[in-house]
Amino acid sequence: MTDLSGPATDLFVDFLCPYAWRGVELAAVLRGQDETFRLRHFSLVEGNHAENAKTHNWSLTDQPLDAPDGDGYMKYQTPSLRAFLAATAAAKQGDDAAWAFTLALFRAHHEGKKALDDDTIAAAAEEAGLDLARFEADCRDEAALRAELKAEQDASREIGVFGTPTYVLPDGEAAYYRFENLTRDPATALEWWNIYKTVLRSDPGVATIKRAKNRPAARMS
Amino acid sequence: MTDLSGPATDLFVDFLCPYAWRGVELAAVLRGQDETFRLRHFSLVEGNHAENAKTHNWSLTDQPLDAPDGDGYMKYQTPSLRAFLAATAAAKQGDDAAWAFTLALFRAHHEGKKALDDDTIAAAAEEAGLDLARFEADCRDEAALRAELKAEQDASREIGVFGTPTYVLPDGEAAYYRFENLTRDPATALEWWNIYKTVLRSDPGVATIKRAKNRPAARMS
Repeated sequence: MTDLSGPATDLFVDFLCPYAWRGVELAAVLRGQDETFRLRHFSLVEGNHAENAKTHNWSLTDQPLDAPDGDGYMKYQTPSLRAFLAATAAAKQGDDAAWAFTLALFRAHHEGKKALDDDTIAAAAEEAGLDLARFEADCRDEAALRAELKAEQDASREIGVFGTPTYVLPDGEAAYYRFENLTRDPATALEWWNIYKTVLRSDPGVATIKRAKNRPAARMS
Repeated sequence: MTDLSGPATDLFVDFLCPYAWRGVELAAVLRGQDETFRLRHFSLVEGNHAENAKTHNWSLTDQPLDAPDGDGYMKYQTPSLRAFLAATAAAKQGDDAAWAFTLALFRAHHEGKKALDDDTIAAAAEEAGLDLARFEADCRDEAALRAELKAEQDASREIGVFGTPTYVLPDGEAAYYRFENLTRDPATALEWWNIYKTVLRSDPGVATIKRAKNRPAARMS
């Protein structure tokens, strides 16, 4: 990932996750508004893998890209690995390239309902304005991309990331922040971000605010 | 539970839970500061029971008070049933009695490290200034108390309560609110309560804010 000067909020995402998509859109709007975010990768397939329940035994980065689709959650294994490796390659062209590619791929998948396959990745690279020859060359250096992605997973375990999006503030405070709506409006994004920071830095040491399952009907519409 | 005029926030608690204790202390401080809370009961043993994972099959209120201690979480079955029934009996003496008894029992268990047994319950009743003869008579009408407690569990399932403390605002918005610290200071309590309401009524439709497992060392001390 790009090394940024000054304090940055780390944002762990997985391309599979619609909440991570909203989280990336929020951060994209806030970039330049006095907030610096650094895109990082946390694999939900790895984090939720049954073999990792007690100790860490299974790594996404050890899996082949042509693995057969697994059952249930494991059917996301290969698409997510493919997306992570491509985003790691895109990030080699700088911070703006990483954001442009990440947004394009999230939007293609969650807004455009495209599969996380090679065609969608190629289209996102083009839309992001990447140097395509360089992107393809970086993608071919798969061992280096896997090593970077593995280091990301190690770092996320150290922090205790369990879902996406997780924002890690410059002071180290970290939480999963799941919200239902999407905004691209600067003032709204700032308001939502301030809610998060208020809770994280709160005096009571808030550990969890989680809605009960059944929201009142009037607010669900 | 006492019927209150005007809009009240329902507060679901289980005497087993140290977070519910902090939640009750918070609400106790806020009572009279323009906030009305109604004490309600949610059983963690019932809510987390393996037989209730898919459909509801197991009710705490169907269990005898002399059931042998179960394994693991089930060792809390009888103490929690005993505490719930006693609190339901105490509430028959009015809202202030319910609060005084509930606070006394939570403090005895979580601050005083007393077991939730008959002696602790009797001491809490005395400390709360209950009419002890009436309390004992109400406790003997166990079938009525169980029916009330069963209705509480039905109501909590309807809302989707999954943990304690869960606050249900007058407009129906509901969330689990877990915080690490305890306050009995009115201004502080109001500030913490406002954080909760801000999140619940927020524009982004916040579903979850949950800290990552490993908080930075500087903040853990």
